[in-house]
Amino acid sequence: MLRVPFTEMINEFKRILLSNGLTQERAALCARLFAEASCDGVYSHGLNRFPLFVRYIREGHVRVNESPEKISGFGSMESWDGRFGPGNLNAHFSMNRAIELAQELGMGCVALRNTNHWMRAGAYGWQAADAGCIGICWTNTMPNMPPWGSKESKVGNNPLVIAIPRSEGHLVLDIAMSQFSYGQMQNYSQRGDELPVDGGFDQSGELTRDPAAILESRRPLPIGYWKGSGLSLMLDLVAAMLSGGQSTYDIGRNSEAETGSSQVFLAFDLKKLPDWHLLNDRLTEIVADLHGAEPADQGGSIRYPGEGTLRIRQENLQLGIPVEPSIWQQVLDL
Amino acid sequence: MLRVPFTEMINEFKRILLSNGLTQERAALCARLFAEASCDGVYSHGLNRFPLFVRYIREGHVRVNESPEKISGFGSMESWDGRFGPGNLNAHFSMNRAIELAQELGMGCVALRNTNHWMRAGAYGWQAADAGCIGICWTNTMPNMPPWGSKESKVGNNPLVIAIPRSEGHLVLDIAMSQFSYGQMQNYSQRGDELPVDGGFDQSGELTRDPAAILESRRPLPIGYWKGSGLSLMLDLVAAMLSGGQSTYDIGRNSEAETGSSQVFLAFDLKKLPDWHLLNDRLTEIVADLHGAEPADQGGSIRYPGEGTLRIRQENLQLGIPVEPSIWQQVLDL
Repeated sequence: MLRVPFTEMINEFKRILLSNGLTQERAALCARLFAEASCDGVYSHGLNRFPLFVRYIREGHVRVNESPEKISGFGSMESWDGRFGPGNLNAHFSMNRAIELAQELGMGCVALRNTNHWMRAGAYGWQAADAGCIGICWTNTMPNMPPWGSKESKVGNNPLVIAIPRSEGHLVLDIAMSQFSYGQMQNYSQRGDELPVDGGFDQSGELTRDPAAILESRRPLPIGYWKGSGLSLMLDLVAAMLSGGQSTYDIGRNSEAETGSSQVFLAFDLKKLPDWHLLNDRLTEIVADLHGAEPADQGGSIRYPGEGTLRIRQENLQLGIPVEPSIWQQVLDL
Repeated sequence: MLRVPFTEMINEFKRILLSNGLTQERAALCARLFAEASCDGVYSHGLNRFPLFVRYIREGHVRVNESPEKISGFGSMESWDGRFGPGNLNAHFSMNRAIELAQELGMGCVALRNTNHWMRAGAYGWQAADAGCIGICWTNTMPNMPPWGSKESKVGNNPLVIAIPRSEGHLVLDIAMSQFSYGQMQNYSQRGDELPVDGGFDQSGELTRDPAAILESRRPLPIGYWKGSGLSLMLDLVAAMLSGGQSTYDIGRNSEAETGSSQVFLAFDLKKLPDWHLLNDRLTEIVADLHGAEPADQGGSIRYPGEGTLRIRQENLQLGIPVEPSIWQQVLDL
């Protein structure tokens, strides 16, 4: 397996982004966010996604030097227009603004419209937690999942992030509303593996673990069946309402590509709470109790959200980031 | 089937609450919230729960005339202590305060500690939507579900509510983090029915639709398997951190009864957005599109969260609220 040092990956991304028109500072941040996704083990939205991102720049979906513009603000709630800039830069800007509002007013809410795919959702949770804030954010997407009771894709998989800062490692949940993404199902299918649990319906309407059958039916399963279907719809609508931007319904109508999505960024500044200095120890006690839960299978372990990320990050920083040689070569050639 | 008029049910509850020490105004609101739960079809947390609520008053878990006390406030984020007052009154107070903050500052966050079971979660979503606000709230609970990979109950089912106002009927999602509650599984089991989808693990660790097997193993399934397990943990921790109150871990350690839980109430005032007057029409267009989705089964229909509630409410207001005669008699005898 080929491993590429973290800084080498950043530099390579930055070179390509500069040659595609990003300014120095923006290219540096955008490159870092892509490399961090791979470094943290989210390969699908790091290196592996980078060539498509560059194509979206060249096709005009992503406008490289557009930044969010403020539409309205009232107290701790603001709406911004992403002007179709790079999704990860827009999202990073928006969480940063939510953190500023939280530092000023306890909490902040930034709703962002007309943005592009933010790549790795969890990045903006880690960002809030690094600033000592609880961060909650989500995005809508193109329609890629049927609502409960239907076989027609009408809702998005709308990833949701909740992050809590902790000195020994933040807790960061990063979940899409589909049980498995199309990309994950393709990976299982290519390896000839079954999904570990039901992932959708086959053509005859039966629940199945066969990824190929779900890829064929285009009926992936929402988490918790009817529950995730409802949650997905509500996250989408809250984002569209607060930002004044597109809903999943609009994204599906208006473009073949996934562009112009709506997002919400919430930050809560823990330092504004009277007992904030006690919180870290309380978290550590609760995590220890969780780790001590009796495993279902002998030798199994119970983990908190984000726990695996830290281990992978350390390994990849030390040994280099594992890459698919053909994709890495594709990037070197860009 | 016996049906009891809505106002008769309120009056009966109020009589009992007055005789258990609540003041006039508090008895009236508490009675209304219980009756509305049954009227909206959430029988488990309306009439059917009322006798246990009265027992909790008599056992001292619920302190009838205690109200939330402000602990701290910074801008739009406040912490309150529920002082073990009635859970539905405390929750109603807290969402009301979040709405006030939203009217002042765009959005508001009230974190509440030391409260009791809020009964019907969705009530506080409807409350926010009636005030023209998007409402998001959740509670933690006693440990009643094993985290993913474990067979020991360490996380709660932590109901989550998201509500969006709409003149033709609010959209209100009200979901617990377990696929089925213990109460639902008992109902299926008593009827001799299978669950419609897998609801947990049996004693040998296999996924099953057999409610009796799950009641025996005490291993109900989180929504979306590992995803709902993580979401449940994070909702719990955010509530405990922001309120300075108990986490599910603490509730499980400190009491046999479920008491002293932590909750979060968020409100976003849509009237503070520049295009708020367009939002209702946009929602109606999106709901119409959802209704038009191709059903999975012929003749099936696709519904938005809260759609069924309105239908049941109208039927029950017209015909009376259906009650289990023995439970109604039990309440008449209180």
